Amino acid sequence: MLSINQYQEHFLLYLEKNKIEKEPKNLYQPIDYILQVGGKRIRPILTLMTAEIFDAEYSKALPAALAIEVFHNFSLIHDDIMDDAPLRRGKPTVHEKWNVNAGILSGDAMLILAYQYFEKYEPITFRKLAKLFSKTALEVCEGQQYDVDFETRVDVTIPEYLKMIEYKTAVLVAAAMKMGAIVAKTSKENAKLIYEFGLNLGLAFQLQDDYLDAFGDPIKFGKQVGGDIIENKKTYLYIKAIEFSSIEQKEELTKWFSTSSKENSIKIDAVKEIFNATGASLATQEAIKKYTLKAFKTLKKINISDDKKVILKEFGKNLMKRKV
Amino acid sequence: MLSINQYQEHFLLYLEKNKIEKEPKNLYQPIDYILQVGGKRIRPILTLMTAEIFDAEYSKALPAALAIEVFHNFSLIHDDIMDDAPLRRGKPTVHEKWNVNAGILSGDAMLILAYQYFEKYEPITFRKLAKLFSKTALEVCEGQQYDVDFETRVDVTIPEYLKMIEYKTAVLVAAAMKMGAIVAKTSKENAKLIYEFGLNLGLAFQLQDDYLDAFGDPIKFGKQVGGDIIENKKTYLYIKAIEFSSIEQKEELTKWFSTSSKENSIKIDAVKEIFNATGASLATQEAIKKYTLKAFKTLKKINISDDKKVILKEFGKNLMKRKV
Repeated sequence: MLSINQYQEHFLLYLEKNKIEKEPKNLYQPIDYILQVGGKRIRPILTLMTAEIFDAEYSKALPAALAIEVFHNFSLIHDDIMDDAPLRRGKPTVHEKWNVNAGILSGDAMLILAYQYFEKYEPITFRKLAKLFSKTALEVCEGQQYDVDFETRVDVTIPEYLKMIEYKTAVLVAAAMKMGAIVAKTSKENAKLIYEFGLNLGLAFQLQDDYLDAFGDPIKFGKQVGGDIIENKKTYLYIKAIEFSSIEQKEELTKWFSTSSKENSIKIDAVKEIFNATGASLATQEAIKKYTLKAFKTLKKINISDDKKVILKEFGKNLMKRKV
Repeated sequence: MLSINQYQEHFLLYLEKNKIEKEPKNLYQPIDYILQVGGKRIRPILTLMTAEIFDAEYSKALPAALAIEVFHNFSLIHDDIMDDAPLRRGKPTVHEKWNVNAGILSGDAMLILAYQYFEKYEPITFRKLAKLFSKTALEVCEGQQYDVDFETRVDVTIPEYLKMIEYKTAVLVAAAMKMGAIVAKTSKENAKLIYEFGLNLGLAFQLQDDYLDAFGDPIKFGKQVGGDIIENKKTYLYIKAIEFSSIEQKEELTKWFSTSSKENSIKIDAVKEIFNATGASLATQEAIKKYTLKAFKTLKKINISDDKKVILKEFGKNLMKRKV
């Protein structure tokens, strides 16, 4: 088994090798741009790593890993249009650098390109990968729609919120791992279990993202700390705070979340105070722990050697240890 | 073999049976809406017909036909956003009835759904269909991008224009027919030839669309006659007119195409006059004839009975006979 950094390096080399320099330029340049802008490449790394966990060479999983990364970046382009976001990873978003039409069309092309990478596999594996991919991609769309719908709703429940982040984020992490398992041709049961592992880890990861958005280290955190609070996003923290709050706290929180104050730092401090006082912060930390442990429990059932279980567990621990 | 009307009826029944009534509603309702708004369903009919031409039951080709129709409607939703079109087939476009975000996301979901319909087929056929579909879908995106690029260019050539309409329109007609051939498991050579037949027929069809947009019967024509002229679209007629024109005619035509006059009828009449005087109208009619004949010539080489060739030829003739 290679290290995370090595998987990343191999993936980046493969990405470079598969750089598209085709006409029409206005279609393919935005694709090249977003794929170069970077990111941690967690999903493709998971695909490569999982293939090796199940005794296949990582190189066999490179096309599937690329499909996952291209799809992920497709969803970023279209989401950024929908959210009217000017920046992504510190650089102008595609629809800012080009225009909305370029963003729509390049995104569409990326979704198709993702499927084309599976053509490197023979029919049975191709069908399995494409089927899992379609199911996952559709769930990601559904998750994005729920996220949009929640913006204008005041009665979002915790189960609804969990379903939204499961679809929008966790299923892609889970599918990235299962694709490694499919390429390695491991047992159906192992493939199912690694999907479950990825799903719970993905949920824990997204909940931690919510938590760090409010309570992360402002120096190390890549995004603006308190961004979700400024945008009145109904995250796990918020829904739990509403659930646990006294009448006065609820009134105050609702008031803060119905305004776009210019005094952001006052608002952020006040809302964080309520998150802490109501026990919402603690409940979120507990939920993160719960899903991480759930992932680790699934690990035990997978039919692989113990040293490989250790590798997966370490990866999960590292992911969850991050303070930013 | 059934009649065109019968294929259409069977397809519409299958479409109704596959109606999606899933959550989230804001994602799936626009999909249902655009699929119900109608259209002639030419592409799925071609898939069903071609399957029977190659001795398979049309019912076997229904999932592939649905994939083609869903993809076609996906491209309409996204194109309408890019063109800022308020109406489609006389009804509000998806982004008008809902909003741009709903249009983007529902379109994305339709592209994925199209792939899912191929899952009805076993691995070898699935792979062939999905592969042809990805290639075609990517070409459609490229065609759309060329179309957008041409808007701001003054030096578009006839070969460039032909490549654009080939990608944007003809390849989907060709692929629709080839999918029928794939489902029917006919020879590679037959599949290749029917693709060529569809491609040339598709080109003839689009050129005729250009021609009728200017010279069609204003009473029978569904769209506004002269729409392309009003929008300064550089169609085959325009490019040929520029090529054939005297210095004075060229100056006049360029002048008309650099304005958005309120006196549309005067502009339309003047431009049509130049199209006729320069011989561009005739050249366009000749091109339509050329590609139609090219399609019919391909037909001769296909290894099917003569009565089936007659059916395909009649279909082509009917398509080309339309005055609207």
